[in-house]
Amino acid sequence: MAEELSTFMEARKENGVHMPINNVVQPLLTDLYQITMAYAYWKSGKMEDQAVFDLFFRKNPFRGEFTVYAGLEECVKFLQNFHYSSSDIAYLRGTFPSIDEGFWTYLSNIDASQVSLHSMPEGYIVFPKTPLLRVEGPLPVVQLLETTLLNLINYASLVATNAARFRIAVGNKIKLLEFGLRRAQGPDGALSASKYCYIGGFDGTSNVLAGKQFGIPVYGTHAHAFVSSFKSVEDVKENSNGGSCIKVDQFKALVLHWLPQVCSILNVIENETNKGELAAFIAYAVAFPTTCLCLLDTYSVIRSGLPNFLAVALALDDLGYKAVGVRLDSGDLAYLSKKCRAAFKTIAKEFSKSWMESFVIVASNDINEDTLRSLKEQGHEIDSFGIGTHLVTCQKQPALGCVFKLVAVNDEPRMKLSEEVQKINLPGRKDVYRLYSAEGLAVLDLVQLTNEEPPQVGVKMMVRHPLVESKRAYVCPHKTELLHKQYWGPDGVMQNFPTLEELKERTAWSLKTLRPDIKRELNPTPYKVSVTDTMYHFLHELWLDHVPIGELT
Amino acid sequence: MAEELSTFMEARKENGVHMPINNVVQPLLTDLYQITMAYAYWKSGKMEDQAVFDLFFRKNPFRGEFTVYAGLEECVKFLQNFHYSSSDIAYLRGTFPSIDEGFWTYLSNIDASQVSLHSMPEGYIVFPKTPLLRVEGPLPVVQLLETTLLNLINYASLVATNAARFRIAVGNKIKLLEFGLRRAQGPDGALSASKYCYIGGFDGTSNVLAGKQFGIPVYGTHAHAFVSSFKSVEDVKENSNGGSCIKVDQFKALVLHWLPQVCSILNVIENETNKGELAAFIAYAVAFPTTCLCLLDTYSVIRSGLPNFLAVALALDDLGYKAVGVRLDSGDLAYLSKKCRAAFKTIAKEFSKSWMESFVIVASNDINEDTLRSLKEQGHEIDSFGIGTHLVTCQKQPALGCVFKLVAVNDEPRMKLSEEVQKINLPGRKDVYRLYSAEGLAVLDLVQLTNEEPPQVGVKMMVRHPLVESKRAYVCPHKTELLHKQYWGPDGVMQNFPTLEELKERTAWSLKTLRPDIKRELNPTPYKVSVTDTMYHFLHELWLDHVPIGELT
Repeated sequence: MAEELSTFMEARKENGVHMPINNVVQPLLTDLYQITMAYAYWKSGKMEDQAVFDLFFRKNPFRGEFTVYAGLEECVKFLQNFHYSSSDIAYLRGTFPSIDEGFWTYLSNIDASQVSLHSMPEGYIVFPKTPLLRVEGPLPVVQLLETTLLNLINYASLVATNAARFRIAVGNKIKLLEFGLRRAQGPDGALSASKYCYIGGFDGTSNVLAGKQFGIPVYGTHAHAFVSSFKSVEDVKENSNGGSCIKVDQFKALVLHWLPQVCSILNVIENETNKGELAAFIAYAVAFPTTCLCLLDTYSVIRSGLPNFLAVALALDDLGYKAVGVRLDSGDLAYLSKKCRAAFKTIAKEFSKSWMESFVIVASNDINEDTLRSLKEQGHEIDSFGIGTHLVTCQKQPALGCVFKLVAVNDEPRMKLSEEVQKINLPGRKDVYRLYSAEGLAVLDLVQLTNEEPPQVGVKMMVRHPLVESKRAYVCPHKTELLHKQYWGPDGVMQNFPTLEELKERTAWSLKTLRPDIKRELNPTPYKVSVTDTMYHFLHELWLDHVPIGELT
Repeated sequence: MAEELSTFMEARKENGVHMPINNVVQPLLTDLYQITMAYAYWKSGKMEDQAVFDLFFRKNPFRGEFTVYAGLEECVKFLQNFHYSSSDIAYLRGTFPSIDEGFWTYLSNIDASQVSLHSMPEGYIVFPKTPLLRVEGPLPVVQLLETTLLNLINYASLVATNAARFRIAVGNKIKLLEFGLRRAQGPDGALSASKYCYIGGFDGTSNVLAGKQFGIPVYGTHAHAFVSSFKSVEDVKENSNGGSCIKVDQFKALVLHWLPQVCSILNVIENETNKGELAAFIAYAVAFPTTCLCLLDTYSVIRSGLPNFLAVALALDDLGYKAVGVRLDSGDLAYLSKKCRAAFKTIAKEFSKSWMESFVIVASNDINEDTLRSLKEQGHEIDSFGIGTHLVTCQKQPALGCVFKLVAVNDEPRMKLSEEVQKINLPGRKDVYRLYSAEGLAVLDLVQLTNEEPPQVGVKMMVRHPLVESKRAYVCPHKTELLHKQYWGPDGVMQNFPTLEELKERTAWSLKTLRPDIKRELNPTPYKVSVTDTMYHFLHELWLDHVPIGELT
């Protein structure tokens, strides 16, 4: 226990604000077979074999043609802290009583100091079959990293991609807020969601801890419970300990002065507006006079929430404060938002308060990517969406299938075949280049062996589809970018990590380098992932070498 | 920092092994609007209002008619540790610079000592619209608990329910293993998945940390990478530091003696079996002679993996060890498992080793509930399934929509209406009774106000559908069970928590009390959630009271 805590404290100290308590990833957060394999490697004298593993996915998520790459910084921190504590070893020893003692000594002493990690830049748009990470080092050690690296990349990239898709669906003018904490996979699932949705293009989160730990802007006003906790205007009292800018009694009188006028203009029966709701709006306005935003649908948006809010907004205006707007959390959001906007315009005109026309309308009711597109088609007056469940659980496809495959041992290529052809992987130690057009658009990603010459700007070359023999193309790149950089090596961390803001900007920039047809929702064009002619032959020779000829019976 | 760590250490000490590092849930893991509401309550003099909140869901997940309730123990631990640190307050103060200073003093001083929590027993089967938790206490304090409680219950119950459904789909004889770590929502999402799948009916996990922290049995053998890391039998060496039960060279010779015979019997060309794979199986057998289980599909199950495994198994047998079996991770699992079983039988007969007929066959390839049912229909020879993605991400429905609704303030009932009728909730402080038949089957859950007489065994009573006036029924319970017990109160924790094993048994028992038609996959019968006649009238009067009469325009 004491030892674990001291490791933990060190991790906190080293990594500062970037490393939240919940994210100290322990090496035992792994599949058991990594341990059994490590032992079998050790037992059969393969401890010093030098392995190269690729981490990649086979298919873009959400029936789309692009993926936002995220989770890298956490992977590097995991390497930085990679070490089995004595209590870990004790647990494992109990699990495997017949394993040779020498292995436990070996396992206690390993760390990631002999591991090298190359990666694409976090926040970049990435594509199937290209290695996001290339991890090299002693075979058992790199093997032991597999599950945790996959865990750290898979969800991060999936949810960042989902967020980016939501952003594309609404365009750049609408504010997107992540409200998924209550539906995520536990505390840390929620924190990851908040962080990576921000990178993917969201403007903020409701998750306060994510605000505190990552500096993400936090948003929130009040819930239905707040509204229904009040029964009448008398419920709102003045807190004697509170230094008040607004005198409650004076404010109530102003609101009650405005309410009949608003109701009359909006053709609502004043008697039927809910007075508990009115009280709640008054209480909220007194607490937050400069940022007052009210939830309208506890009883009835049109017949209660809307007139109550407008009476409060006019009263605030009397005192020199500008209310911010409203939130809708049920019903037909297109219809209701238009009704609200119309009422705002009527009131703005009636009382010559033109700024009231543009009260903010926030909507939040089980919204997904399709809802966003459908609302856009129908037309609506919503300025901001709060999105929870569908965003953080990635309902449309709740997992990105990243895998971690051995591609070389002691400089000899390896490939895994299987009963399914699409599961094969590109063997060997590889680099990936992104080739850009004169317009700055990404043309294709080129996978080649590290010992090949890099593609040259202005020099025409033939590239190939990795599997389909007939698919070949000439390309003459205007710019080339080696996507892999080394992030971890014998001397530790080798790159500075961008801030969350920088990552967010990088993702937005990288998305801009993609042609629009690759990003569209319906039948998007696949982005080309090609190989060099050398890589093509290398792959196919090895493939035939490995597959036994079948025999039909 | 120092303060946070000391809180953390305390939490570890108090909660021992049950509280993993990743699960120290902080009170800032909440939606911002809880803080803004708390301030507005404080500001309008509602700090001492006594609130009752219900936590419930509206619809069973996965198009099913039952839900496994899980996450309670974590909720109680959250209450136990509920306290805002000075760094939390500093962050919030920075976020809301214009909030009255008095509020920060108030917030620094609150804890859950004035909160009372009633709950259904964790592990029970539960149903829509009934309160799983009833949380009572000062309005702002209970409000501040909302998001975290939802976060802790939602995913736990969802994934436990999913696991229970997978268990029902395969029956009780087949072993189910959770392999979802790499696809879960980050580190803690994975830990929660392992824990709650075990409660729901799984037999173990691949997640080593879950094994260490919760005592769940851990399983795992080797991956494709292990197989492809070997190129030839010469690759397997004897580790000079390892105390070996099996001499590698002797073992190799035995295997190479058996392989041609096996190939000949199985009608496979020996030359085409992959020798790297053979080497890997040899290495694995040497490392784990008593638990040898080999992954067959790296190259070709039939033409390579199967004969290689059988040669190794026969060699192990020569040395007095019994191999355990095989794993299939791609291809047509029904077909391949039958092919494997047939080969096992052939070899068993040929060499008079009848026990070899029943080598274990483990299958693991993107399996979901539907695959399990389909495999059962087709017939297969699989003894154990390893299930990852679909299980932990709950692909079929990745979120349970638990909500937390205010039902009473200062003994007055509250309800939230909305634009959608199905979103209304049962108001008032309520108890839930489960009524059982003479056969021990659950007949219905009865929701009533806490001040009503409990239902009496042997006494016929009328119960009602909460919304549909015409739906009424008489029931005469053979046994009644008050489902709510108090778990937290002024003196702290009020119940002992069951062990994980006990929870698992409780869930299995609770599932047995459900009629089979409620548990079937296709068109399951909904379980009855009824209310007393008193509750019915109470609800409907309040409802009409709250809704303004619409006006068609």
